[in-house]
Amino acid sequence: MTTNAMRALVFDGQHVQVVDWPSPTLAPGYVLVRPLLAGVCNTDLELTKGYMGFTGVLGHELVGRVQAGPPKWQDKRVTCEINFACGNCTQCTRGLGRHCPTRTVMGIVRQDGAFADLVAVPVANLHEVPDAVANDEAVFTEPLAAAYEILEQVPIVSGMEAVVLGDGKLGLLVAQVLSDAGAQVTAVGKHDRQLDVLRERGITTHLLDDWDRTRRDLVVEATGTTAGFALALQATRPRGILVLKSTLAANEALDLSPLVLDEIAVIGSRCGPFRPALAALNDGRIDTASLIDQVYPLERGVEALAHAGQPGTLKVLLRAG
Amino acid sequence: MTTNAMRALVFDGQHVQVVDWPSPTLAPGYVLVRPLLAGVCNTDLELTKGYMGFTGVLGHELVGRVQAGPPKWQDKRVTCEINFACGNCTQCTRGLGRHCPTRTVMGIVRQDGAFADLVAVPVANLHEVPDAVANDEAVFTEPLAAAYEILEQVPIVSGMEAVVLGDGKLGLLVAQVLSDAGAQVTAVGKHDRQLDVLRERGITTHLLDDWDRTRRDLVVEATGTTAGFALALQATRPRGILVLKSTLAANEALDLSPLVLDEIAVIGSRCGPFRPALAALNDGRIDTASLIDQVYPLERGVEALAHAGQPGTLKVLLRAG
Repeated sequence: MTTNAMRALVFDGQHVQVVDWPSPTLAPGYVLVRPLLAGVCNTDLELTKGYMGFTGVLGHELVGRVQAGPPKWQDKRVTCEINFACGNCTQCTRGLGRHCPTRTVMGIVRQDGAFADLVAVPVANLHEVPDAVANDEAVFTEPLAAAYEILEQVPIVSGMEAVVLGDGKLGLLVAQVLSDAGAQVTAVGKHDRQLDVLRERGITTHLLDDWDRTRRDLVVEATGTTAGFALALQATRPRGILVLKSTLAANEALDLSPLVLDEIAVIGSRCGPFRPALAALNDGRIDTASLIDQVYPLERGVEALAHAGQPGTLKVLLRAG
Repeated sequence: MTTNAMRALVFDGQHVQVVDWPSPTLAPGYVLVRPLLAGVCNTDLELTKGYMGFTGVLGHELVGRVQAGPPKWQDKRVTCEINFACGNCTQCTRGLGRHCPTRTVMGIVRQDGAFADLVAVPVANLHEVPDAVANDEAVFTEPLAAAYEILEQVPIVSGMEAVVLGDGKLGLLVAQVLSDAGAQVTAVGKHDRQLDVLRERGITTHLLDDWDRTRRDLVVEATGTTAGFALALQATRPRGILVLKSTLAANEALDLSPLVLDEIAVIGSRCGPFRPALAALNDGRIDTASLIDQVYPLERGVEALAHAGQPGTLKVLLRAG
């Protein structure tokens, strides 16, 4: 490794490898962050199959320490919003930088990510991590923010009956966020071990085969499958809301007629606000510890991704070398 | 014709014919209405292709005169809501009788319709037609109510930019309703003649090929085609709303990933409230006269349906014999 190189987990369009990679340079308005922990997301696995045509350093969930940048941020422990927006367009001036049409996205769209010794991040995207939030909690800020996005889109009324379909990492966070917001949550999944995390927090859970499929006001589809979406449509009450938390496989055949007949609102939901996520972690309102499956050093990143791709695996983390 | 028979346009599962048909009997809570005018809807054409497995008397858009029933309603000129609800279930007690799971639907689901000399309708479904509203306006109440349904589902802010895709009967009503509600409407279609109706009312129109496809806050899909839905998704701004006004063909392949990436809300929209529709007709705020293509006597109902099925045809009406 030369002084201008670092270690990084890189997808070159064909293979994922830990390689020497040029260190990012410090640009105006940016900081360089040294990741302490970074999380593997299903999106990372999709990217290695060609999703978004991405090549470069993977990784968009991190907690790290600022290594270089404006003095105000020096040595701060931070987590980082992933959409790098222009700040000037129609979307940005409406406060929707997450939808800036020319944005890059850390580790996803034309922007190197956090599975590396250093990552460059705009100052505007930084959030200081409160002292009470441990690294292995703070690393969940980005996926937890994606769960909080639902609260930005759907007014949760106390006692509102909600179903969360899918007991993967995102589903488990969504169920906790909705429950914490006052909804009566039923979580439906295929894995007893995962559902246990929610049961221990007093959330009603059902294995898919034991679920009565009573229709609810709010259904969150977090399986990412077409079958899950069809089931979610069936489980949404007329005039109810179905939140679609993950992109479905393109061009699968779908019957959308129930959507019109039952006047259902299907709301796509993606990245979310970091502030309420950090506040919930600070208050201990969301359990993330139970969601950690294994921590790997960055050098074993290829193995970590393979592990994350095994069915039933919860969060796999990468630790700086 | 015997005293207990009447003329009716009937679909028997295979053929549409004007036949002698048993007159409806007067049940408690019902009136018998003699239709003065009844409108042909695309749904009628779909029903004759097997949609909903319906057999019986077609027709669900009407203005008529009460012939028998409680004295209060005797001889009143009325229009009728089409969903015959139980009045007791969860949906009904929430005021959503239009979504009652055991409802019948006039001329659509297990209930004879209005293309006949008489039709039975629950008193709860009647709306008296104001004197200022002519028969050939009042007959548009049901489809106009379907357009007003959008205002029940989407808050229209003055100046909000909306696109209506489709220049069929429903599209032309929707464009007028949204414009009247204060939206900046662009109507997009394929027929100059149809779009003229809107242009004359000061609404911006474009032929599909001349449309710049600028993304808008609100897009209403009223083409009923999968291609129209895909186009509507492209035309909806991030975090915008796409209202789906007609059921799409089942099981066509669709790419819903833009829905999640751009966090679009797709809202299914069906039958609507009669009150604002009648009020708008009473005030002359909606032009329906330009939407009438031809009026047929009931006896020529088969010909009327064939005419309604020709591309570019606007509203075909049936007149009592």
